[in-house]
Amino acid sequence: MIVLIKQGASEEKINHLVKWLEDKSLIVRKFDGQEQSVLGLIGNTNAIDKDMLSSLDIVDSVADTPETFKASSKKMHPDDTIINLHSGRQPAIGGGNFAIMAGPCSVESREQIIALADEIKTAGANFIRGGAFKPRTSPYDFQGMGAEGLDLLVEAREKTGLPIVTELMDLRQLDLFIEKDIDVIQIGARNTQNYDLLKEVGKQTKAAILLKRGLAGTIKELLMSAEYIMANGNENVILCERGIRTYEHDYTRNTLDLSAVPVLKALTHLPVIVDPSHGTGRADLVPSMSLAAIAAGADGIMVEVHNNPAKALSDGPQSLTPEKFAELMVRVNKLREAMS
Amino acid sequence: MIVLIKQGASEEKINHLVKWLEDKSLIVRKFDGQEQSVLGLIGNTNAIDKDMLSSLDIVDSVADTPETFKASSKKMHPDDTIINLHSGRQPAIGGGNFAIMAGPCSVESREQIIALADEIKTAGANFIRGGAFKPRTSPYDFQGMGAEGLDLLVEAREKTGLPIVTELMDLRQLDLFIEKDIDVIQIGARNTQNYDLLKEVGKQTKAAILLKRGLAGTIKELLMSAEYIMANGNENVILCERGIRTYEHDYTRNTLDLSAVPVLKALTHLPVIVDPSHGTGRADLVPSMSLAAIAAGADGIMVEVHNNPAKALSDGPQSLTPEKFAELMVRVNKLREAMS
Amino acid sequence: MIVLIKQGASEEKINHLVKWLEDKSLIVRKFDGQEQSVLGLIGNTNAIDKDMLSSLDIVDSVADTPETFKASSKKMHPDDTIINLHSGRQPAIGGGNFAIMAGPCSVESREQIIALADEIKTAGANFIRGGAFKPRTSPYDFQGMGAEGLDLLVEAREKTGLPIVTELMDLRQLDLFIEKDIDVIQIGARNTQNYDLLKEVGKQTKAAILLKRGLAGTIKELLMSAEYIMANGNENVILCERGIRTYEHDYTRNTLDLSAVPVLKALTHLPVIVDPSHGTGRADLVPSMSLAAIAAGADGIMVEVHNNPAKALSDGPQSLTPEKFAELMVRVNKLREAMS
Amino acid sequence: MIVLIKQGASEEKINHLVKWLEDKSLIVRKFDGQEQSVLGLIGNTNAIDKDMLSSLDIVDSVADTPETFKASSKKMHPDDTIINLHSGRQPAIGGGNFAIMAGPCSVESREQIIALADEIKTAGANFIRGGAFKPRTSPYDFQGMGAEGLDLLVEAREKTGLPIVTELMDLRQLDLFIEKDIDVIQIGARNTQNYDLLKEVGKQTKAAILLKRGLAGTIKELLMSAEYIMANGNENVILCERGIRTYEHDYTRNTLDLSAVPVLKALTHLPVIVDPSHGTGRADLVPSMSLAAIAAGADGIMVEVHNNPAKALSDGPQSLTPEKFAELMVRVNKLREAMS
Repeated sequence: MIVLIKQGASEEKINHLVKWLEDKSLIVRKFDGQEQSVLGLIGNTNAIDKDMLSSLDIVDSVADTPETFKASSKKMHPDDTIINLHSGRQPAIGGGNFAIMAGPCSVESREQIIALADEIKTAGANFIRGGAFKPRTSPYDFQGMGAEGLDLLVEAREKTGLPIVTELMDLRQLDLFIEKDIDVIQIGARNTQNYDLLKEVGKQTKAAILLKRGLAGTIKELLMSAEYIMANGNENVILCERGIRTYEHDYTRNTLDLSAVPVLKALTHLPVIVDPSHGTGRADLVPSMSLAAIAAGADGIMVEVHNNPAKALSDGPQSLTPEKFAELMVRVNKLREAMS
Repeated sequence: MIVLIKQGASEEKINHLVKWLEDKSLIVRKFDGQEQSVLGLIGNTNAIDKDMLSSLDIVDSVADTPETFKASSKKMHPDDTIINLHSGRQPAIGGGNFAIMAGPCSVESREQIIALADEIKTAGANFIRGGAFKPRTSPYDFQGMGAEGLDLLVEAREKTGLPIVTELMDLRQLDLFIEKDIDVIQIGARNTQNYDLLKEVGKQTKAAILLKRGLAGTIKELLMSAEYIMANGNENVILCERGIRTYEHDYTRNTLDLSAVPVLKALTHLPVIVDPSHGTGRADLVPSMSLAAIAAGADGIMVEVHNNPAKALSDGPQSLTPEKFAELMVRVNKLREAMS
Repeated sequence: MIVLIKQGASEEKINHLVKWLEDKSLIVRKFDGQEQSVLGLIGNTNAIDKDMLSSLDIVDSVADTPETFKASSKKMHPDDTIINLHSGRQPAIGGGNFAIMAGPCSVESREQIIALADEIKTAGANFIRGGAFKPRTSPYDFQGMGAEGLDLLVEAREKTGLPIVTELMDLRQLDLFIEKDIDVIQIGARNTQNYDLLKEVGKQTKAAILLKRGLAGTIKELLMSAEYIMANGNENVILCERGIRTYEHDYTRNTLDLSAVPVLKALTHLPVIVDPSHGTGRADLVPSMSLAAIAAGADGIMVEVHNNPAKALSDGPQSLTPEKFAELMVRVNKLREAMS
Repeated sequence: MIVLIKQGASEEKINHLVKWLEDKSLIVRKFDGQEQSVLGLIGNTNAIDKDMLSSLDIVDSVADTPETFKASSKKMHPDDTIINLHSGRQPAIGGGNFAIMAGPCSVESREQIIALADEIKTAGANFIRGGAFKPRTSPYDFQGMGAEGLDLLVEAREKTGLPIVTELMDLRQLDLFIEKDIDVIQIGARNTQNYDLLKEVGKQTKAAILLKRGLAGTIKELLMSAEYIMANGNENVILCERGIRTYEHDYTRNTLDLSAVPVLKALTHLPVIVDPSHGTGRADLVPSMSLAAIAAGADGIMVEVHNNPAKALSDGPQSLTPEKFAELMVRVNKLREAMS
C-alpha cells in the first residue's frame, strides 16, 4: 500500500502517522520525492482502514500495490536510489554515479592484490573486487584464501582508498565481514535464492549488498530476492546482471542479458550493474560488452582483471590484463561522456 | 585413483594398505564387489608412487581416474549403492528397493498431516514427505510452520512408521533435524549449490540426503554437489530429478528431464529418484510421468498429495488427491511387475 | 465454433446444414462421435448468427471456440483420431494402434536398406523409416541419396510390406513423393514452421504427415503448424516429440520432453509419437526412453537402427544395432501388455 | 584450404592457377588484401597435392582450414566485407557503413507505407523494411498483403530512394523478388535452416541476403546457413541477431544476445546487424538496445516503426512511433560519433 502525503505536511504529523502504522506491525518506508513524500507500507495491510487513512488531513491519496514487488518497486520510490556506502567511503552508487569494480576473480597472494589494486585505481576503477571465499562447482578445486584473503583486500583498501566488493557464501562468515567493514557484500549467483543468507544480510548489516542474478534466474526472482533483503531492513541493494544460462555454449559461457538493464530500470529504483566477465566468460568480449552495458543504461560494471590471466587460479580466460583494462577505461570514459 | 585388490587378499593386509594411504592425507573408499575389492582414493594422489603401489602383492592393478566425479562415480563403485537408513527405519533405497515418497508440499496442520499419512501409507507409500521450512520466491508468502511442522512430521512417523523426508534450508536448523532424527534430509533445488550447507550435511550427519537437481542445474553440477557431501563424509546421497527450466512454460512449470535417469544411472552408483510434481507443476500429468519415470529406470518417485489441493498453502495445482494417488499406486505396481 | 448435433438427426438434414455453412466460406469438419455428431467450423464465424443456428431443430447447442487450436483441438473431436493410411497399407496409427517406425537415419545403399528392412520387420517394426533427402547443418556434409534413396525405400517396402516414413524438405519434391506413394511424409524439425511447405502437404496430398516438433519449438507452435496442414485439407497429421534444445548438452544432444506426450494428448485428438534417437542423441539411452515414452502414453516410437552405427553417414552415435533393436522390442511388447 | 599468394605475383599467373583449381571441381574465392592476395578453396581438397601447390613460384604458403566455416570465415577473408548492393542503390553495408533499416512489421496499405517511408527517411533511416509475405504462427492470422505489398514497397522506394528489405518465405516467390529488384532479401528466423531456400537465393540472385538467426539458433548454425548461400554463389550475406529463445519470458519476448555481435565479428568477415524490435518485443526497450548494439560493434540496426502501433496488424507492441524513432536517431548519431 502506498500513501501519498500532501505537499507541505509537517514532519511531526508525518512521523506521528508512521509510528501509528508501525504499531500495526507494518514496515513503513518513507521516500521524500522532489514534490511530495510517499509512505510505502509493507506487510499485512488488510488490517488498515483505507478510507480512514485517505481522510487524514496530511494524506493526499492511498493506493493499493497489487504488484509482486514492494520495497524494490519504482512505484514506491520513483527516483533512482543513490546508495551512500554505510562504511562512509566513496563513491556512492546509482543515480548518475558510475561504479567501476575491478580486480581478480580470486585473491591469490599479497603481491597479486596490492599491485593490482594500484594498477586498476590508476586506470580508473573506483572499487576493488576479489574473492576470498569462492563457490566452486567441484569440492576438489581451489576454494579461496578465506579470512586471509579478506585481510589482503583490507590492506589493498588501506593503500588505495578503494572500497571493497567481495562475496559472502556462508552466514557464519557474516560477523567477519562486518568486523572487516566490507563496503559491498556480494551475494553470488548460486546463492541468489539462499533465503536465509538474504535475510541475515538484511537484518545484521547496512553494508551495500551486490545481489547477482541467479545462474538461470529470472528477473522476477532477482527482484524477489532483493525484497528478502529489503524487507529485513537493509535497502542498500545493488542488482547485478551476470549472464544467464541458455542453449548457446559454443562461444560464450553464459548469455549476457543486457535487456535486463532497461527492464530492471523500469521496474525498480535500485542501481543495476553488469558483469561482462562472467556474463561472457571471454576476455576478448569484455570490452565490447562493457560498452554495450553502458549504452544500455547500466549504473556500473564489474570487470575481472588479473596480472597473469594464464596462471589465474580461477576464471583466467575471462580476465583482462591491467593493460587491456586501462585501454577499456579510456573507451568507457569517452562513451560515458557521449551518453550524458 | 582406483586400486583393484587381488582376489583372496587378506583383510589384514588390505586394512594395512588403507591406513598407509590415509596417512598420506588421502580419503580412501573401500568397496567390496562380488568378485574383488576396490579402493577409491580421493585427494591429492600425485604424492603416490603408482608403480610402487602396483607392485604390492595384494594389488591387482592401479588406474587413474581423470573423471571429474570421484566418490559418486560408477567406476569407483560398480554396483548400485543401497542406502540403509541411518535412523534404522525401513525401507532401504536403491538397488531394487523402490521408494515412494508422498505427502503435502507444506505441513499445514496436525489434522492434515496425520490423516494424510494414514491414507498414503494405505495406498502404498513407504516414506512421508512434507515441508516444514519452505523456500518461497517471495518473502511475503507463507514460509512454512518451522519447528512445529517438524514435530507434526515426527508424530505422523510415530503413528505410521513411515520414515520422514523433509527439507533443510539453513545450516542453523541442522541440529534440530539431527535431534528429531529426520530420516531423509532434502536439499532443495535452490540450495543445490549452497556449498556450505552441503559440507555440513556431509560432516555432521549420516542421515540420507535427498539432493535435488538445481532449478536450471546441469547433470554435472548435480554430481559435483553430491561430491561435496560425500567428500565430507556422508555417502548416503539420493539424487533427484525434478524438472529443469526451459523455454517451454505455457503447459508445464518445468520440463521433466527423464533422460537424466539413465544418464545418471550410467555415471553413478547412487540411487536416482524422480519428482513429477515439481517436474511438471500439474497434477494431471503426475500419473503418466510417474509411470514414465519407472520405465526410465528410476529408483523411486516423490509425489505431492494433499487432502484439498484447491486450498493448499503452496503448490496446490500439482498435488494429487489421496484418491488419485491410490489409483496411481495400482498402476505403479502393475508396471513395476512388468519391468522386473 | 462448435455445433453439437442432436442424437437421431437425419444425415440429409445434417448435410444440408453443412452445405449452408460452407456457402458462408467456412471450413466444416464433421466428427461422428459414439453418441452424437459434432460440426467444427473453421474460418470467420463472425458472420454466423449463433442464436439462429442454436434454434435449428437438429442442433443441440452451439459453442464458441476461443482456443487457439481449432482443427487439432480435442474439443472439436473428443475421440482420439485413428489415421488409416491413404496408401491403403497397414497398420493404422493412433487410437490403440501402436506404431514402431525403425530404420537408418539416411538411406545409404541398396544392401543396407534391404537387409535392414527385413531385420527390423522380423524384430517387430511396422514401418520402415529412412532419409533420402537430408537436412544437414553444413552444406559440405552428405546431403542424402535423393530420388535414388526414395527408390530404394520403395524396393524395401515391396519386399517387406512395411509402409515408408521419409522426410520431405522441399516442396519441389512433393510430386515425386506423391508419385512414389510415400505412406508417411515426415516434416523435419527445421521445417516445422516452413509454412509454405505445410500448406502444400495440406493441399496436395492425403498421405499421413509426421510433423516433428521444432528444434526449440513450443507445444503451441507444434499444434499451430498442424493447423496449417489441417486447415488446408489434410487431417492425417501425426505429431512427434523429438527432444528440445536446452542448456543441458554435456550428456544428451537434446532434452527429450516426455511430458509433451500427456500435454498433447489432453489438447488434441491427433496421434503423438516419440523419437528417442534424436531426442537423446545416444544409442544407450534409446531403450529406456522408448519404454518411458510408452509409459507416458505415446502412440508410437521412431527409432534409428543401423547395420553398422560406427560407419553411418549420419547420426551413428544414436543408432541401435539390429540386435539391440530386437532386444528392445521384447521389452516394448512386455511393457505394452502391462499398460493395456 | 587457403593459398597465400606471394606479393607481386602477376594477375595472369594467379588467374591461371584459379582456373586450374576450378577444373578440379573446387570453388575458388579470391580475396585481395592490402598486402597480399589469398585464395580460399571450398570443396573436396583431398585431391590437391599440397606440396606441389606450395612449390609454385607465385605461392607463398598453403594452409588447411579445419574450421567448420569456410566461405564465411575471417581466416579466408581477414578484412570486413563491404556489400555493395547488386541493385546499384546506396548505401553499402559493412566496413564502416552503418545500416539503419526501419519500417513496419507488415505492409498494410499504400497510405501507411508511403507516409512512413518519408518520415523514417527524414529521421535518418537509409533502408525501408516491411513485410509483404508474413510467416505467422497461426494459419488464421493475417498472412501479409503478398505481391501487392511488394508493389507498395517498390512505390515507396521510388519516392524516397531508400532500398528495400523484405522477407522471402517461399522459393516460388523468388522470381517475383528478382523481377521487383528487391535490394535486400530477408530470410526470416523460421527459415534459417530451410536449406533449399538458402541454396536458391545462393544460386539465383546476387541481391544482398539478410539472414536472421533462428528462433533458438546457435551462432554456429547461423554461420553454417550463411555457408549454404555462399557456397551456392552469393556472397552478399548480412547476418542478423534478433533475440533468442530462453526461459525468461515475463518481461521480454526473446533474449537479445548482444554478445553474438563481437563473437560473430571475430569469426566472420560478414556484416552483422541487430534487430532490437523482435529481440525484445517491447518498444520501450528498443532505444536502449539499439544504442547497446552500436556500442557492441554492430554494422547496423533494424527497427520496427509504425504510424499507429496500437492498430498494427502484427507486432504492434514492439513498434516505435515515427516520433520515438526520430528521437532515437539523434541519440544513435551522437553515440556513433563517440564510437568512431
